[in-house]
Amino acid sequence: KVRQLLSVLHPAEIGDLLESLPHGPRELLWELVPSEEQGEVLVEVNDEVRSGLIDEMETHELVQATGGLDTDDLADLLHDLPGAVIHELLLSMDKQNRQRLEAALSYPEDTAGGLMDLDVVTVRANVSLDVVLRYLRLRGEIPELTDSLFVVNRFDHLQGLLPLSTLLTNDPEASVAEVMNRDVEGIPATMKSIDVARLFQDRNLVSAPVIDENNKLLGRITVDDVVDVIRDEAEHNIMSMAGLDEEDDIFAPVVTSARRRAVWLGVNLATAFLASWVIGLFESTLDKVVALAVLMPIVASMGGIAGSQTLTIMIRGLALGQVGSSNARSLMLKEIQVSIMNALIWSLVVAVIAMAWFQNMDLGLIIGAALIINLIFAAVAGFTIPLILKRVGVDPALAGTVLLTTVTDVVGFVAFLGLGTWYLT
Amino acid sequence: KVRQLLSVLHPAEIGDLLESLPHGPRELLWELVPSEEQGEVLVEVNDEVRSGLIDEMETHELVQATGGLDTDDLADLLHDLPGAVIHELLLSMDKQNRQRLEAALSYPEDTAGGLMDLDVVTVRANVSLDVVLRYLRLRGEIPELTDSLFVVNRFDHLQGLLPLSTLLTNDPEASVAEVMNRDVEGIPATMKSIDVARLFQDRNLVSAPVIDENNKLLGRITVDDVVDVIRDEAEHNIMSMAGLDEEDDIFAPVVTSARRRAVWLGVNLATAFLASWVIGLFESTLDKVVALAVLMPIVASMGGIAGSQTLTIMIRGLALGQVGSSNARSLMLKEIQVSIMNALIWSLVVAVIAMAWFQNMDLGLIIGAALIINLIFAAVAGFTIPLILKRVGVDPALAGTVLLTTVTDVVGFVAFLGLGTWYLT
Ligand SMILES: [Mg+2]
Ligand SMILES: [Mg+2]
Ligand SMILES: [Mg+2]
Ligand SMILES: [Mg+2]
Ligand SMILES: [Mg+2]
Ligand SMILES: [Mg+2]
Ligand SMILES: [Mg+2]
Ligand SMILES: [Mg+2]
Ligand SMILES: [Mg+2]
Ligand SMILES: [Mg+2]
Ligand SMILES: [Mg+2]
Ligand SMILES: [Mg+2]
Ligand SMILES: [Mg+2]
Repeated sequence: KVRQLLSVLHPAEIGDLLESLPHGPRELLWELVPSEEQGEVLVEVNDEVRSGLIDEMETHELVQATGGLDTDDLADLLHDLPGAVIHELLLSMDKQNRQRLEAALSYPEDTAGGLMDLDVVTVRANVSLDVVLRYLRLRGEIPELTDSLFVVNRFDHLQGLLPLSTLLTNDPEASVAEVMNRDVEGIPATMKSIDVARLFQDRNLVSAPVIDENNKLLGRITVDDVVDVIRDEAEHNIMSMAGLDEEDDIFAPVVTSARRRAVWLGVNLATAFLASWVIGLFESTLDKVVALAVLMPIVASMGGIAGSQTLTIMIRGLALGQVGSSNARSLMLKEIQVSIMNALIWSLVVAVIAMAWFQNMDLGLIIGAALIINLIFAAVAGFTIPLILKRVGVDPALAGTVLLTTVTDVVGFVAFLGLGTWYLT
Repeated sequence: KVRQLLSVLHPAEIGDLLESLPHGPRELLWELVPSEEQGEVLVEVNDEVRSGLIDEMETHELVQATGGLDTDDLADLLHDLPGAVIHELLLSMDKQNRQRLEAALSYPEDTAGGLMDLDVVTVRANVSLDVVLRYLRLRGEIPELTDSLFVVNRFDHLQGLLPLSTLLTNDPEASVAEVMNRDVEGIPATMKSIDVARLFQDRNLVSAPVIDENNKLLGRITVDDVVDVIRDEAEHNIMSMAGLDEEDDIFAPVVTSARRRAVWLGVNLATAFLASWVIGLFESTLDKVVALAVLMPIVASMGGIAGSQTLTIMIRGLALGQVGSSNARSLMLKEIQVSIMNALIWSLVVAVIAMAWFQNMDLGLIIGAALIINLIFAAVAGFTIPLILKRVGVDPALAGTVLLTTVTDVVGFVAFLGLGTWYLT
């Protein structure tokens, strides 16, 4: 019954299923995946699940599973395979495929070169469409996700695109040169994959040629891999905000998971102790006015919430290229104005509640003032932290929230307890 | 110079540019966008920017800009257009287009029916490929993002797909029936768009037929629109975690933005007051042992961090369909085990530091015990909150963090101050 289920599922769907199974059932299911599909499933699952599955397999099973993969998919897998498997795979390849694999390995994974495959169908500009049509019939198959043939000269330089729709709707007597789309820029192999993704999204592309610095055709990128880039990036952002890695197996051994998460908890503990130390500076004040201890988390937490709104807008704006030097000043100004408005509203509310609760006018004034100070600092911090992190090359989604809440905790406690010390005691 | 720039940009890129401009420059740029492109740019920008631009335009400008749009894009815009424009547009349409528009409007935006366009090219199974080829040449154009023709019978029931690659590589004498791909399920018009997106991603599709409950062909979905769905969903998740809406204009008027964010701040203020009230219950203890006030934020914040890790894993797992009734128990068990391990490690660290800092053995024991309690509660809350929210139909990305930190704050303060009251005083 399971075999029947597996036969209707696509490799990516089998991958999803494997990822969502605990150890034990996962390995049992893996045994049932037909070996000719195992390679493609390995390409689809996340890094950690993949190395777990690879550990389960014998050398000859791995060679069989991965031998039939496209060179670009094999390139992605290669660093996870044991040396013996790589050795056998290289031996079994002909010279051309070995060169293709080397080419695929020579680009970083997160660039156009790392994303591209080599399944290009090229034609010359001077032939007629009829010749192209006969060539395709002779060829007998066209690679998946081909929406255009690439027109190149004899040096393999990209000259244009011949969309299949153009090929199908024009007079077969016409020459490629007459009907091809010349208005095409190849994607440089060094372009970052997130920029490739934006290009595909903005221009509604299915496939696009990749070129080197001399406009020489190197390969092509297809939209299915772009979709994976977009999804991976989105998951990466969400997971890293909690200090997690999207490539981790949710059923990793308890000790492994605990150790990974311990790092994040440790970083946050350090910032929590910093906040505690700041509070400790005001110990004698707290001793005299215990109401300050009761109310102080409010000032800190409102700052954290308001700041994280600005931070989120900035992180997204930076990722979309929506925030740059030309509009940074207007945006900063706006964020500060928004925060002042909310500071005025909410400090009033908090002040009134505090006065009523503790029957103490002064306490209300102090918490109101402290909240105004902290919300303005929160806006400035939410705006500047991602810019600084980006400048120094740290992922704002990973470190932004920790830094921000450290600022809003410290400023919040200092403002509230400082004002309290000065005024009440 | 700006006009020159605009002429090389695609509508989506012009949309991005408009979204990142403050008011003033934005309206100036909009004036320069050629009116034949304005319709497509309106489709690309976010909801709020769109209605701002529409407000700037006269009725006849809007009719001109939107008259040339595909029916499905027009359907997306329609609720933003003034009544006079809709009236004129409907008058200018022929009967067939009016029916198409009504059909597009009859499905919710977030379903396959709302995503589909009507640009399908259909063929019959009994004709030869040569007839198809001649038909396409006669037609003179094929809609963008067409990778397959749809094979239907005379009742418009979907019978199979004829990929362009099959059409191009087979003998023209063969019949469609002989070479078509029969192994195809149409997408039901009622399928949720996030499920459509997963299907496209898992099966590497470029376009797919949409059918009604009787297998009648209604339209098709193309990958460019699926890419937009994936991107929108990702942004929605990130923005809603901070109580923000991805359809908001980052340069909305200050008062508008302040009012929107005030809601989120108000919700969080209520939870902060709840935490304060809990602290207030222990006022007399705090008065006696002020060190408790200094250390209490540590217990609460560590619980928040640990809980948000479990919460994030759950939210992602639910979105990917990775967490379901079959594996929920093993995952819950694992999360609790991980949290116990980290609780033991970090409570030891915190206890030692607290003892050394305050020269008080008992204080260390109390904070250690409170931290263990809070981290275990955090794991349980991080696991159950998203399940409950999903059950009651609330977006876990929106409400999850607020609820979780409320639990971890309250449990943290009660555990720490409660133990302190019982033991120290
Ligand atoms: Mg997957
Ligand atoms: Mg990945
Ligand atoms: Mg690669
Ligand atoms: Mg697009
Ligand atoms: Mg590929
Ligand atoms: Mg792929
Ligand atoms: Mg856009
Ligand atoms: Mg949107
Ligand atoms: Mg919308
Ligand atoms: Mg629609
Ligand atoms: Mg895929
Ligand atoms: Mg469309
Ligand atoms: Mg579109």
